[in-house]
Amino acid sequence: MTVELVDTAERTLPTGTFAALYAQVQDFYAHQMRILDAHDAERWALTFTEDAVLELPTLPEPVRALDGLARYVRAGADRQRRAGGRLDHWVGMLDVRPQPDGTLHTRCSALVYVTPGGESPKGLRVCVMEDVLVRTGDEWRTAHRRVTRDDLA
Amino acid sequence: MTVELVDTAERTLPTGTFAALYAQVQDFYAHQMRILDAHDAERWALTFTEDAVLELPTLPEPVRALDGLARYVRAGADRQRRAGGRLDHWVGMLDVRPQPDGTLHTRCSALVYVTPGGESPKGLRVCVMEDVLVRTGDEWRTAHRRVTRDDLA
Amino acid sequence: MTVELVDTAERTLPTGTFAALYAQVQDFYAHQMRILDAHDAERWALTFTEDAVLELPTLPEPVRALDGLARYVRAGADRQRRAGGRLDHWVGMLDVRPQPDGTLHTRCSALVYVTPGGESPKGLRVCVMEDVLVRTGDEWRTAHRRVTRDDLA
Repeated sequence: MTVELVDTAERTLPTGTFAALYAQVQDFYAHQMRILDAHDAERWALTFTEDAVLELPTLPEPVRALDGLARYVRAGADRQRRAGGRLDHWVGMLDVRPQPDGTLHTRCSALVYVTPGGESPKGLRVCVMEDVLVRTGDEWRTAHRRVTRDDLA
Repeated sequence: MTVELVDTAERTLPTGTFAALYAQVQDFYAHQMRILDAHDAERWALTFTEDAVLELPTLPEPVRALDGLARYVRAGADRQRRAGGRLDHWVGMLDVRPQPDGTLHTRCSALVYVTPGGESPKGLRVCVMEDVLVRTGDEWRTAHRRVTRDDLA
Repeated sequence: MTVELVDTAERTLPTGTFAALYAQVQDFYAHQMRILDAHDAERWALTFTEDAVLELPTLPEPVRALDGLARYVRAGADRQRRAGGRLDHWVGMLDVRPQPDGTLHTRCSALVYVTPGGESPKGLRVCVMEDVLVRTGDEWRTAHRRVTRDDLA
């Protein structure tokens, strides 16, 4: 019995390839966001390409390269102190668009919530995160990230 | 090395088929819900079959066909104005059951949250969404949807 | 056209295997958590191995075997009455690590939320859930589960 499946997102992909990419990207974000929430700037940087660019709604212009990433992680730790508790990310609503050049264009929602000591978690904001992911060796890395917030539009 | 996998949900499927379907359905819902949240009735209708039926907890009887879908989208825009901010959906807890006739029976949870201007997101309700999905050409479409809410039971 | 994919999580897996496992685990948790939220101790027990061990932040020591599971489910029903409404789980941020012995080490976030009658859902806590899953016949089951809560650390 042969089952011929055509992916809805990218019609020229062989059967099963879209599923492989989709699972890899879900796992990648679960991993990358845990590193961010742990404020581990060094491991966080390894999940980006060396020339990666970040566009963040709270910064006036795009941030380049690994210095910017370290600053981004430190800023997160500062925000956490101000918020009065642990900040965490929850990623979902993922859309993956494989590109002809082998990169992936992804779009997802990222909920940021705070858990003040001993209290219930409280949602702070939901961002839309749009990435360009590239394969470096055996791993996906973020080459470009654009984060937008509807409430700041 | 050969790995023989049998899917837990449907034992007669070839290895990898369940994963392909599961990824396609996740991507489909991320796409369909973004269109709903943007109140784009025309593109929203394209994600349903022409004779699709909706059963909604807020309507006394099932809604048929594309006129009903447009009304559903307009009602969503009205609810959004009353809620005082942007309404969004977040889908998760997905279960996919492939059927012998090639359709998919899916069940998932859908969180509806509102983001009033400048404030934090607030969860309004969680619905259970049960769909019958059919393949039309290269794409999945919703042929039947039943939405239930525990708090109205 | 041949596409050669290497999974980021486990480099020795054949192409597509990681996706198959990742989809199976997502579906497993959607299924297992619905059973928990329905307080169905009998079906809940079937999702664990006979000698499964649970480590829970609210219990002084690990709980063994099916008696403990039934107690866990009953305690959940009690907590629900105290919380004043239906308790539900929402699982996400899943990381799956296939092991050489065929088991899976998984890590995910589990949001517990309550829906008081007629009101909006409210997040109570987010736990980190770390499982060892083993295949029994055609199905995955939990052989070991460790649940931790940051707010109790």
